[in-house]
Amino acid sequence: MTKDRPIDLAALDAHWRAANYLSAGQIYLMSNPLLTEPLAPEHIKPRLLGHWGTSPGLNLVHTHLNRLIKDRELDAVCIWGPGHGGPAVLANSWLDGSYSQVYPDVGRDAAGMAELFRQFSFPGGVPSHVAPETPGSIHEGGELGYSLAHAYGAAFDNPGLLVTCVIGDGEAETGPLAASWHANKFLDPVHDGAVLPILHLNGYKIANPTVLSRIPEAELDSLLTGYGYEPLHVTGSDPDKVHHSMARAMDHALERIAECKRSKGRPRWPMIVLRTPKGWTGPAEVDGLPVEGTWRAHQVPLANVRENPEHLRQLEAWLRSYRPDELFDAEGRPADQVLACVPRGELRLGANPHANGGLLTRALPVPPLEHFAVPVDKPGATLHEPTRVLGGLLAQVMADSAEHRNFRVVGPDETESNRLGALFEVTGKAWQAEVLKTDEHLSSDGRVMEILSEHVCQGWLEGYNLTGRHGLFSCYEAFVHIVDSMVNQHIKWLKTARQLPWRAPVPSLNYLLTSHVWRQDHNGFSHQDPGFVDHVLNKSPDVVRVYLPPDANTLLSVADHVLRSRDYVNVIVAGKQPCFDWLTLEEARAHCARGAGIWEWAGTEDGTREPDVVLACAGDVPTQEVLAAAALLRSHLPDLAVRVVNIVDLAKLLPHEEHPHGMADLEYDALFTRDQPVIFAYHGYPWLIHRLAYRRAGHANLHVRGYKESGTTTTPFDMVVRNDLDRYRLVMDVIDRVPGLATRAASIRQTMADSRTRHHAWIREHGTDLPEIADWTWTG
Amino acid sequence: MTKDRPIDLAALDAHWRAANYLSAGQIYLMSNPLLTEPLAPEHIKPRLLGHWGTSPGLNLVHTHLNRLIKDRELDAVCIWGPGHGGPAVLANSWLDGSYSQVYPDVGRDAAGMAELFRQFSFPGGVPSHVAPETPGSIHEGGELGYSLAHAYGAAFDNPGLLVTCVIGDGEAETGPLAASWHANKFLDPVHDGAVLPILHLNGYKIANPTVLSRIPEAELDSLLTGYGYEPLHVTGSDPDKVHHSMARAMDHALERIAECKRSKGRPRWPMIVLRTPKGWTGPAEVDGLPVEGTWRAHQVPLANVRENPEHLRQLEAWLRSYRPDELFDAEGRPADQVLACVPRGELRLGANPHANGGLLTRALPVPPLEHFAVPVDKPGATLHEPTRVLGGLLAQVMADSAEHRNFRVVGPDETESNRLGALFEVTGKAWQAEVLKTDEHLSSDGRVMEILSEHVCQGWLEGYNLTGRHGLFSCYEAFVHIVDSMVNQHIKWLKTARQLPWRAPVPSLNYLLTSHVWRQDHNGFSHQDPGFVDHVLNKSPDVVRVYLPPDANTLLSVADHVLRSRDYVNVIVAGKQPCFDWLTLEEARAHCARGAGIWEWAGTEDGTREPDVVLACAGDVPTQEVLAAAALLRSHLPDLAVRVVNIVDLAKLLPHEEHPHGMADLEYDALFTRDQPVIFAYHGYPWLIHRLAYRRAGHANLHVRGYKESGTTTTPFDMVVRNDLDRYRLVMDVIDRVPGLATRAASIRQTMADSRTRHHAWIREHGTDLPEIADWTWTG
Repeated sequence: MTKDRPIDLAALDAHWRAANYLSAGQIYLMSNPLLTEPLAPEHIKPRLLGHWGTSPGLNLVHTHLNRLIKDRELDAVCIWGPGHGGPAVLANSWLDGSYSQVYPDVGRDAAGMAELFRQFSFPGGVPSHVAPETPGSIHEGGELGYSLAHAYGAAFDNPGLLVTCVIGDGEAETGPLAASWHANKFLDPVHDGAVLPILHLNGYKIANPTVLSRIPEAELDSLLTGYGYEPLHVTGSDPDKVHHSMARAMDHALERIAECKRSKGRPRWPMIVLRTPKGWTGPAEVDGLPVEGTWRAHQVPLANVRENPEHLRQLEAWLRSYRPDELFDAEGRPADQVLACVPRGELRLGANPHANGGLLTRALPVPPLEHFAVPVDKPGATLHEPTRVLGGLLAQVMADSAEHRNFRVVGPDETESNRLGALFEVTGKAWQAEVLKTDEHLSSDGRVMEILSEHVCQGWLEGYNLTGRHGLFSCYEAFVHIVDSMVNQHIKWLKTARQLPWRAPVPSLNYLLTSHVWRQDHNGFSHQDPGFVDHVLNKSPDVVRVYLPPDANTLLSVADHVLRSRDYVNVIVAGKQPCFDWLTLEEARAHCARGAGIWEWAGTEDGTREPDVVLACAGDVPTQEVLAAAALLRSHLPDLAVRVVNIVDLAKLLPHEEHPHGMADLEYDALFTRDQPVIFAYHGYPWLIHRLAYRRAGHANLHVRGYKESGTTTTPFDMVVRNDLDRYRLVMDVIDRVPGLATRAASIRQTMADSRTRHHAWIREHGTDLPEIADWTWTG
Repeated sequence: MTKDRPIDLAALDAHWRAANYLSAGQIYLMSNPLLTEPLAPEHIKPRLLGHWGTSPGLNLVHTHLNRLIKDRELDAVCIWGPGHGGPAVLANSWLDGSYSQVYPDVGRDAAGMAELFRQFSFPGGVPSHVAPETPGSIHEGGELGYSLAHAYGAAFDNPGLLVTCVIGDGEAETGPLAASWHANKFLDPVHDGAVLPILHLNGYKIANPTVLSRIPEAELDSLLTGYGYEPLHVTGSDPDKVHHSMARAMDHALERIAECKRSKGRPRWPMIVLRTPKGWTGPAEVDGLPVEGTWRAHQVPLANVRENPEHLRQLEAWLRSYRPDELFDAEGRPADQVLACVPRGELRLGANPHANGGLLTRALPVPPLEHFAVPVDKPGATLHEPTRVLGGLLAQVMADSAEHRNFRVVGPDETESNRLGALFEVTGKAWQAEVLKTDEHLSSDGRVMEILSEHVCQGWLEGYNLTGRHGLFSCYEAFVHIVDSMVNQHIKWLKTARQLPWRAPVPSLNYLLTSHVWRQDHNGFSHQDPGFVDHVLNKSPDVVRVYLPPDANTLLSVADHVLRSRDYVNVIVAGKQPCFDWLTLEEARAHCARGAGIWEWAGTEDGTREPDVVLACAGDVPTQEVLAAAALLRSHLPDLAVRVVNIVDLAKLLPHEEHPHGMADLEYDALFTRDQPVIFAYHGYPWLIHRLAYRRAGHANLHVRGYKESGTTTTPFDMVVRNDLDRYRLVMDVIDRVPGLATRAASIRQTMADSRTRHHAWIREHGTDLPEIADWTWTG
């Protein structure tokens, strides 16, 4: 161990006191920020909002990180898991000047301090949590559980970066956080940065003790050692002693990290367990009940300051206990001692460019699609597995990004199963634990990340994206619901960040949902759910994009687009099973650029007749069934004018006013007509199409088929029959909906119904689909 | 320690071999189940589906559980986390006779065995996973992560029950599972049963090694010790040795459990770490590549048996290696030695009534609502916090269920915050870890369960419900999305279970979503999301119910209904903030029974005029804004005929054919008219109402306001203004939509717009809502 570095305890304490003062000030004060006059009710905010309990602990960590960064010129960011302690992080970024840099109206002086206080949790002001508006942040601590996964995501492929991560003992009870500890088995000491978790045990959540604070310390150490860390303890309530102990622990952690970076084999990374009182330095008792050190300190310790003179008195005593006159000069500027530990420029935690990752984003080298496209002489003559074709493109992107290491593919153990195995020709799967001879593709520096936790995959990718790098999450469609709430939060983040001029756009979060509802016939009902699309479409249209490419070349074109995009959440739903090739690459590009279009070759378009019926489709399996239905109609009802419309970009169906991709009504009507029957075969829940298109002129004639929760272990075609999405049913729908056909085509309708009956009998006997289905090809 | 119990290794091995034979048989064989003739391609299924890899391990556990149960007459169930190993659990329940008991067409003889094989993963047959169709199961292992939480849920308040839980090493990587280990801090040795986790390390997932199998055993032990368990290891691949070691470990675990049940203080419960090869006893190598002991054994080890004679030969050798002629007699009945370890009657794992919990369900003692209802002399004259009123009812239910202990309330640290604190007058919060003087309401036998993990809360309650007991999950509305995927799976379970005559109905899973989108003004955007309702309404209408009670008495009436119901997922959205009382208890009951109705007193109904406009509302905040809008219209446009419709039961809006609660069109039209403008103020995303009502006659005149992702930290009224749901906007909507009003009421419209402008200016200056809003009361 190297010689102990000097610690200026008085300076650290001054910075910490200043941050504590500013934190409490934000919660309480409307004016009189420097307490230049005696505190009066009119100085107090009318609504007291904010979380005090965690703030002193966050301030302690920030103060000591400042010292560490300044002393060593460290490139470091911090993930504030208890992000509801917004006042603390805001206080610190005001102190280091980064706040005033992006918000010049909140200067580092008395007027700025007054505005810092006033705007906090105030209408038109800033949120009470760490949020996109907070400089230096890539993590909102509202919905707990994701801090540690974000931290690892930020550290991957940033070998010079230290990512500290404060984990509250409340958050530590969540599943995603509990799973994230094991991310250290995926962190490469050579190509990745370091993660320093700081588990902050302040003992209480909103109303309850926390589990990890109430098990014996030896048991906690056993747990953390079992997670693969070396815990360093900092415990206490005496500020001087804690400062000393914290500084030493941080120095020690940095030395251990340096050793880990040099070590061979899987290192044991250090972490800090910080045990300090909740609401530390705040009121010890209020109205005769203990507050400091208890759950009562979680939010606003003194609740009735405006009305209750004793509360007002206590607040003034509390604020003055930090000795603000020593901390700020008469103009409200922080004293030199306060700023002694604060680093400069981009080393400040509030100004590190990794926390505004768009600044560092380097465009992905997406190669020409021509190298990967499948040849299509005529529609439907050949079959390819779309995701396998995509795998070729992704492998090339992976190879071409080897130098800058700014692309990763994550997934819960499904990359190979999702037919993206070409990636393993150019990179491995990240893995630091034991390797056996029977393993394949594991490597310490691989950029495919597989852990059986969708939460951790999502958290990694969010952290990677928000620090400016690119990625793709490939997931079974049904199980992406596991991260519903995480994607909610990420979309909210992006929506807000897009409105902040100082935040540079970051790479989009890209999902490839495959092993989808129609081809989980072997895994059954539990694996059949197409509702993620519905879920994301509730969110901000500025951020959300949904694509359903119907074949291999359209998937390539969509992937090309999303890998270049910024600030979106892109959801691609595409199958991995053999699928007919419908479009050449050129046609695919044109179709994807439009987002929705008429497939003339599939219908009876001759440029003269209006269609009698429109067959619309979105998704690979619905497209196949619609084309099969179109072929049946052509042979059984050759005089019927049939139009086939395919939708790749689902938001095209929305009104233009509701989504930037939405079609104008004229455009919509040109595809779907204003008054002819539309039979729409959709990949997911049919009512979603109604929810998107209900304002359109032709809506009353829109009849949608899709998945309606009829699933089990069965054959692929039986899945579509069970959900009334099959070609025979679609033809029956046409006959039922086109005026005049019901009688004229009654026998054809019966033929279709008979085919369905034959299907049922056949699969019960043979367990496979009818030969006419299994061998079907398009003969347009 | 007591004297070692005898082990009949030969009998255990015979049972295990039989189960392995039957497992492989299900995956491969269409006929020739006893291999009475040489295996031929026509005996093989046309599609080979199923998961072999985990099956031998599950069979080992089941065999040894049989011995344990039989020897000790144990009341035991097992949660099969690797439920994709369906063949194993089906094989065992066929062996113990419970399968034939519920499915008499699958007898315990050669014909039955043939049918057991044929139906597996076959159209019209049974799913490939453990599912509701599987006797003895309460857990489908499709979406991984929930086994251990289910196990604890089953154990609570079942003091005589042993709940074993097999956890795959894949599943162990998930967040929910990682969090669930800590459930031992909530298990009362006196009033609860025991949970025996069996962590099955077979080393591989689909394509990757597992984390826990690749860390040193000492590190794993440290982790499990840190979780609070005492790990017992069973490792090997020699069946005889493993049988011996497993039997001893199970005996030892039972003795430790008995000690734990007697101990004072927090016990250290035993668990078993079982390390055996993946695909154990299956083909060692196929096509020159290792299979047994690798990820290649995950699903179907020999994939081309019909086409490849060498694969066929290998399959036959594999099946015959179990010596089926020793295991089954000529009629296919299991030999006596095979059945020697199998317990009888309800002690069989396939027949234990706890795994068909409806059999044991005892109705909750729901007291008369009159004791808890709030008096309402006239609408809108008083305010109550609805959830606090509900808390009184729940406390009484909790008190009255003390004897049978069949009711629990779960939540992530929010019971008090959600104003249900009355519960703590009659019970405590379950807690086995350290207790300090500053804690409140903790007790070892409490029936309120709080852990900061929505996943664990949900898993506990599912396990508790499925074993026949009642409960309520109170949750912040935004964060219930964390369990989106879990509720998906639970609804799928209930949908299927309802169709099985042998499964008795179980208590419904009840959500109270409070701290909802409109009143998270202090926590901001991350806490604002009403989309869970959209999510569940995609699922089976046989199971899903959604209620939005607008005041305290309607909340009581809804709660009364859901606590008595069976086999549903009930979602109640209700606020905790002071809310006007609109209905007396009697009115509330009548209104809830209808689910939707006209509030004559709120509109201008006089029995003679058709309304010029309908103001509809669903949710407490929208109801208040609609009533305020109605009052504004009454004063500004006294001649306008206004109808107010309130919807409690959201599914009423659906067509009757789509949901059992859906209104017939006539009924809908009688409320909403067929052609008058309807301004609908809805709690959540406005397009949900369109998705429900798009088939109604008046849909083109339906104009919905709701939450549209405009959120931040602000005031309650500013939240509705930001989302255009406020009273002024609603009046403007009326003026814009009612023919002829645009001109006549232009100045009134301007007055409304001015009020919104005034609002904006006021909150920016004062940080509070306009006095006219804060002090508003209904004066109908």
